[in-house]
Amino acid sequence: MMQNPEILAALQERLDGLVGSPSGYMESLPKVVKRRVHALKNLQVKCAHIEAKFYEEVHELERKYAALYQPLFDKRSDIVKAVYEPTDEECEWKAAEEEELTEEMKEKAKVKEEKKDEEKEDPKGIPEFWLTVFKNVDLLSDMLQEHDEPILKHLQDIKVKFSDPGQPMSFSLDFHFEPNDFFSNTLLTKTYKMRSEPDETEPFSFDGPEIMGCTGCVIDWTKGKNVTLKTIKKKQKHKGRGTVRTVTKTVPNDSFFNFFTPPEGEERSTCPSGTLEDEDSEAVLAADFEIGHFIRERIVPRAVLYFTGEAIEDDDDDYDEEGEEADDEVRPN
Amino acid sequence: MMQNPEILAALQERLDGLVGSPSGYMESLPKVVKRRVHALKNLQVKCAHIEAKFYEEVHELERKYAALYQPLFDKRSDIVKAVYEPTDEECEWKAAEEEELTEEMKEKAKVKEEKKDEEKEDPKGIPEFWLTVFKNVDLLSDMLQEHDEPILKHLQDIKVKFSDPGQPMSFSLDFHFEPNDFFSNTLLTKTYKMRSEPDETEPFSFDGPEIMGCTGCVIDWTKGKNVTLKTIKKKQKHKGRGTVRTVTKTVPNDSFFNFFTPPEGEERSTCPSGTLEDEDSEAVLAADFEIGHFIRERIVPRAVLYFTGEAIEDDDDDYDEEGEEADDEVRPN
Repeated sequence: MMQNPEILAALQERLDGLVGSPSGYMESLPKVVKRRVHALKNLQVKCAHIEAKFYEEVHELERKYAALYQPLFDKRSDIVKAVYEPTDEECEWKAAEEEELTEEMKEKAKVKEEKKDEEKEDPKGIPEFWLTVFKNVDLLSDMLQEHDEPILKHLQDIKVKFSDPGQPMSFSLDFHFEPNDFFSNTLLTKTYKMRSEPDETEPFSFDGPEIMGCTGCVIDWTKGKNVTLKTIKKKQKHKGRGTVRTVTKTVPNDSFFNFFTPPEGEERSTCPSGTLEDEDSEAVLAADFEIGHFIRERIVPRAVLYFTGEAIEDDDDDYDEEGEEADDEVRPN
Repeated sequence: MMQNPEILAALQERLDGLVGSPSGYMESLPKVVKRRVHALKNLQVKCAHIEAKFYEEVHELERKYAALYQPLFDKRSDIVKAVYEPTDEECEWKAAEEEELTEEMKEKAKVKEEKKDEEKEDPKGIPEFWLTVFKNVDLLSDMLQEHDEPILKHLQDIKVKFSDPGQPMSFSLDFHFEPNDFFSNTLLTKTYKMRSEPDETEPFSFDGPEIMGCTGCVIDWTKGKNVTLKTIKKKQKHKGRGTVRTVTKTVPNDSFFNFFTPPEGEERSTCPSGTLEDEDSEAVLAADFEIGHFIRERIVPRAVLYFTGEAIEDDDDDYDEEGEEADDEVRPN
């Protein structure tokens, strides 16, 4: 049957029409036409390079606007930190959603509010502003451990800094902390290197600037406060004698603060590509880039809306939570 | 039980922590803190207005780059239309995917190619370029009817035109046709009005320019060639006498060319808001805006990649196809 030229032709006809078999379609074109399509593809490569320049100019524009936003973000920071007390005029707000509350809810809220007012007689600024933002965003709360929370209460601001004009494209996320018992840094920084140029071998995959890598920073943990490490006790049985002994090991611990020690550098250069460790760190990096991008694009520009919950979207990725190791004895290192 | 203040407090505590109950969270804050959050929200409104200016400047940049792309798009058009025959140098292409074909596939393709070369002795330009693009993109092929195909063979170019500086933000999609038997127009146009400013009542929903409306154009159909209308014959039974008669009715027909008569204008102004017709046309408009945006953002800038199939993504929306009315006798009007 496969020798029948009519059936072969009919099959080929079907193949030609198939979306997702691009090479087959190209191959089926008359030679003179294929030649012209190649000319169009060369024009398309030129378009990709123009597009790269476009994104560089958008980056310039973002830098320009970052400077326009900054006074507003600084004022936000001053209000959060209780450096500045806004005037009555600045605090006037008519919001539909707050008026839609039923009388009953308002009554309850009032009771609650009075109770709170009694409890914390004079709260300074907006307590736990950034911690609340973190808790309200799935992408961030997934990284958050219980032991991170007392530390993030001291987070006072996150700033986005763009690379200077003429420098390779990059941005930094600066986490500003008030002095605290956990580490001596008041600034923790994560820098993302970006690239806005088509790949030589895959020019058509270019679709705007990409995050290419990132670097973290060293956290000077106070002794015994490093939540990114934990000591576990393991019972070992001697093979010959059958006696049992307990050994103590220091191992990595889940923590938001691992964000500042991304797997790049050591692991990536020592692991031969394609090994399991390499794939693992690739996945960690992909998640890390997504988080960095999200903090830059959404969290910093509209933090208050994540604080109140107004900006929370339903379409956040849902990750399955993995079971925790319940048997390990955990304490900060 | 609901009178127990401890349980109520515990419930409230849970409610406060609930993502998606923003008002509840806000209401639970001490009055002085809530006041400061309102100040942050007022700052956020100012940010939204700065963001609107940013997108206006991006639009300026897009206009500037449109002029840089245009010579390449014009050359593409000239090659497609056989106005220009590219040189050997312009047609040089080393593509990985074309080399990955097996020898067997190449052999088959060669046979096919030779056959094609014989069939169409000297194909001009790139025949059916835009029709093939349409067929390869789900979003467009869903609109495409069999009777549209002979017409779209005459489509020679799609151009994006931006509004002039200082004018209200908008863009047009210009469909250029070669002279044909179906209509006398050589240009069919669809214009999308855009808006880049935060809504007064919902400033935080602003997230860049939005398409606000669109206008089509009149197609001067040759008599008997209008594929957007069809005549159907219906048998009607007389209630009293029981006799059967056949009536002929002209009704709208599915066609890509309905794209040029969007439901705005007549229907929207005559239907009271909230009626079924209104909801229907809202849905048609939403789909229309998506298509207009997609043609502007993806199809026109990289048409050749949709022609070859290289740009086809798997994540296109899948629409359920509705059953066709099989009993109607259909012919172009």
